[in-house]
Amino acid sequence: MKDIPASWINDVVTPRPADSYKGTFGRVLVIGGNAQFGGAAIMAASGAVYAGAGLVSVATAAVNRTALHARLPEAMIIPDDDPQLLALIPTVDVVAIGPGLGTDERAARLLTQTLAAVAPQQCLIIDGSAITLIAQKHLAVAHARTLWTPHQMEWQRLAGIPISQQTPQTNQAAAANLPGTVIVKSHRTQLFTPTGSYRNPLGTPAMATGGMGDTLVGILAGFVAQFGLNDKTVCAAVYAHSAVAEEVAKRNYVVLPSMLIQALPAYMHQVAEA
Amino acid sequence: MKDIPASWINDVVTPRPADSYKGTFGRVLVIGGNAQFGGAAIMAASGAVYAGAGLVSVATAAVNRTALHARLPEAMIIPDDDPQLLALIPTVDVVAIGPGLGTDERAARLLTQTLAAVAPQQCLIIDGSAITLIAQKHLAVAHARTLWTPHQMEWQRLAGIPISQQTPQTNQAAAANLPGTVIVKSHRTQLFTPTGSYRNPLGTPAMATGGMGDTLVGILAGFVAQFGLNDKTVCAAVYAHSAVAEEVAKRNYVVLPSMLIQALPAYMHQVAEA
Amino acid sequence: MKDIPASWINDVVTPRPADSYKGTFGRVLVIGGNAQFGGAAIMAASGAVYAGAGLVSVATAAVNRTALHARLPEAMIIPDDDPQLLALIPTVDVVAIGPGLGTDERAARLLTQTLAAVAPQQCLIIDGSAITLIAQKHLAVAHARTLWTPHQMEWQRLAGIPISQQTPQTNQAAAANLPGTVIVKSHRTQLFTPTGSYRNPLGTPAMATGGMGDTLVGILAGFVAQFGLNDKTVCAAVYAHSAVAEEVAKRNYVVLPSMLIQALPAYMHQVAEA
Amino acid sequence: MKDIPASWINDVVTPRPADSYKGTFGRVLVIGGNAQFGGAAIMAASGAVYAGAGLVSVATAAVNRTALHARLPEAMIIPDDDPQLLALIPTVDVVAIGPGLGTDERAARLLTQTLAAVAPQQCLIIDGSAITLIAQKHLAVAHARTLWTPHQMEWQRLAGIPISQQTPQTNQAAAANLPGTVIVKSHRTQLFTPTGSYRNPLGTPAMATGGMGDTLVGILAGFVAQFGLNDKTVCAAVYAHSAVAEEVAKRNYVVLPSMLIQALPAYMHQVAEA
Repeated sequence: MKDIPASWINDVVTPRPADSYKGTFGRVLVIGGNAQFGGAAIMAASGAVYAGAGLVSVATAAVNRTALHARLPEAMIIPDDDPQLLALIPTVDVVAIGPGLGTDERAARLLTQTLAAVAPQQCLIIDGSAITLIAQKHLAVAHARTLWTPHQMEWQRLAGIPISQQTPQTNQAAAANLPGTVIVKSHRTQLFTPTGSYRNPLGTPAMATGGMGDTLVGILAGFVAQFGLNDKTVCAAVYAHSAVAEEVAKRNYVVLPSMLIQALPAYMHQVAEA
Repeated sequence: MKDIPASWINDVVTPRPADSYKGTFGRVLVIGGNAQFGGAAIMAASGAVYAGAGLVSVATAAVNRTALHARLPEAMIIPDDDPQLLALIPTVDVVAIGPGLGTDERAARLLTQTLAAVAPQQCLIIDGSAITLIAQKHLAVAHARTLWTPHQMEWQRLAGIPISQQTPQTNQAAAANLPGTVIVKSHRTQLFTPTGSYRNPLGTPAMATGGMGDTLVGILAGFVAQFGLNDKTVCAAVYAHSAVAEEVAKRNYVVLPSMLIQALPAYMHQVAEA
Repeated sequence: MKDIPASWINDVVTPRPADSYKGTFGRVLVIGGNAQFGGAAIMAASGAVYAGAGLVSVATAAVNRTALHARLPEAMIIPDDDPQLLALIPTVDVVAIGPGLGTDERAARLLTQTLAAVAPQQCLIIDGSAITLIAQKHLAVAHARTLWTPHQMEWQRLAGIPISQQTPQTNQAAAANLPGTVIVKSHRTQLFTPTGSYRNPLGTPAMATGGMGDTLVGILAGFVAQFGLNDKTVCAAVYAHSAVAEEVAKRNYVVLPSMLIQALPAYMHQVAEA
Repeated sequence: MKDIPASWINDVVTPRPADSYKGTFGRVLVIGGNAQFGGAAIMAASGAVYAGAGLVSVATAAVNRTALHARLPEAMIIPDDDPQLLALIPTVDVVAIGPGLGTDERAARLLTQTLAAVAPQQCLIIDGSAITLIAQKHLAVAHARTLWTPHQMEWQRLAGIPISQQTPQTNQAAAANLPGTVIVKSHRTQLFTPTGSYRNPLGTPAMATGGMGDTLVGILAGFVAQFGLNDKTVCAAVYAHSAVAEEVAKRNYVVLPSMLIQALPAYMHQVAEA
């Protein structure tokens, strides 16, 4: 397990090609936000938009429509019970399911529908309660281009490893049983890709607040949509999330998701110009 | 085809007359924003308000009311199924239809009603899904004071020219078959007016993100409402949109519509004082 | 008619007494904002809150509740069809009716109820469509502590003086027929109090945008709630509104209500410390 | 009664432990915000989030959902008539009831349910209309880990001491009859804990505005959630609330809750780094 090299973010976040349009930078669909956790979907979508994804849609409980638009008019919305959702899934580059999804029957149905609808070339991010649901219901996930983003308790549920026994070795072994890449979030997040394992050298306890994981999902989605799915991109997204937080934490005791999201475009600019 | 001269923005955006009131700066009506794309109407209306239009109303799906007011209390709202909408149209200087309008029956009805209701002296901006609808349904548009704002795919639909064959020459020939001015958006936007053709020398790939076209519609509407409809004004609006984006992009990897809109009044001030 | 002396704002906005609480700075009730013009009530309430009123409530169409709270959690709301509204009126120091009220039957009923409910010691601000309604329906207003805030067209309706004939002399004569103070808004606003007449020496065409009048209503309400009703206070509110706008206009082509409102507390601080 | 020492805030707000996660910093549940006073719950929740609580939920009238998420996506919501609320209460570290709760039957039922459900190890903050209800209905409160936050009129209702007779001596005697700590808010707030009495040396009349008490509730909740319940923490929260306000008041005539909340993370950072 090696630390993510500081140079990778520079390799990934480079000046945009002059002749580009919004389609160049990919399409993201966030599926999440039930009636109780609507903010999670808003934060994930905001992360994707501010990271630079070309187009971002959110499938969420209809009650979250107005709050989403009021904060983020750049995103599009589809109520998560709209039959058109299934038709929307194949049109995007990245599907991120889980932020604020909940674990009830409606959530389970959305998850199984999404797992069935996602196509091989698409990137699928599975987060939060979607992970819990998969663990609880022993749902099979065979999608190779998957990013798993459990925090330690969710990883315990999914992999069956108690938090106290979550070491790079045990984590890697369990991750090998899952398709795609596993990102075990902690104060030093670990990444297990099909071809390598990485440790995030950055991070600050100022990030330890609700919604920070949802924000990471959005940044991951935005990075993959723009820069493609590979180890460097995924590591760079995790690294950027913490690097921005460290920057904001130089002036603030707590780094809230909305503060991090606001600061993201300037950080990425500095990286691209470096 | 000549580049828009840098001096034109200074010719258009000049100090306001001292003895003026909100009516001096025109009335704008944005028609758009269905239940899925409400943000588009919000961004267009915001562009018009921050550009300096005297009064801005939005005809949109009623579900977008609260998000609009929460972001932009300066705008007025009328649900797009309110029979009073037809009476409102003749009272404004600029009608901009299309941002987030969608392409369903409701959208088509709104569009045909608007096309029928607009008076010769009014400026009509046709954008986004309104362009797609006109192409799909072969709707006749005879309004001379029209601004068309297709992106390249919408232009393909409207003019029948595949994107790969969209050259200044083919575009100009097709634009000549349409009333008014055609603004073909790309990383170097082209404008075809009844009397000239222009190329936007500005623009940055940081603008390649959802909602940027809606924002341009708002700025166009705000400029025409204040400065009148002529080549210089239309070119200046397109130029300003990109100039502000370039300014914001000096510090940010992506320029979101809300960032551009916030920065617009300061840019216009600098121009007017130059 | 004399210009408002620059010193008056300093006489009015002075350091707050150390031993004070929110009740010290008065209670304001804004009545306005129908389903189409909800933003007007939000801007008026924001003006009052940012001017420093102790407590601000808004009676408005229930559909405006969420946008109000999303922008201004400091304000309280009562739907304007709530029977408790009549009980709320006597508890406040200033009632401001009109911003975005509309002119339909519901609006007329609210207005007549308010005119009947307001007590002699309360300040009543009559603005916008409330003025139009009074003119249309020949409603009698006998309340001495009234502030009228017509723009020139509303003043034409109320006083019967065509805009072209609105001079200090004709305005003063007509104002003398109304109880309280008349504030005729224009690029050089005129004030006619029971004991004097004043001209606002400040103002910028950058203020000529929708909602600016609603904002003035809020600032007037906030000033009267804190500093009492007298010529100096009313003149200072009008002066402050323009002074802040001039300050913001040093950097912006248009001064939107939300920009003015944000800048108000810092301006008042500078005045109080001068 | 001694002044809160300036050093206590530095003793309490210290650098966060490196190996921490959101659970480290506690869970807060705000119960409040009826249909009229929704902003109060939003401001209280914002105070808790910006103070650094790990997770913040709000039980409020369902009509407040969207405004809460639009301002504060970091918070979770549960409608206050949702039967799941009772199951949520035992999962948090701090329950704060009262901001904008109102005094009707629904409010009384929420209060009595909460008083019955709260467990000994939890901190309970009783504020605003919850205090009024307890006084009116003579509800028994035996919870030792209670923080009472009355303003002077609420303290009169609760303790039966007219405002003019509220002295440190009379207040202390009455506070001794209540479980926990009483915080009598005024321009120099007094605190009576089971083991001491303290006076807040800070505060500015710029804070005398609606919502400032709700904001204090949130900061108290956030501090206790992170730093534990003891005299120093409670005093530090009260002190921080005023210290931030004094800082903001150096540039603003009135300090609105939203301004204070925004400035809180930077203040706490300075304290922790001092």
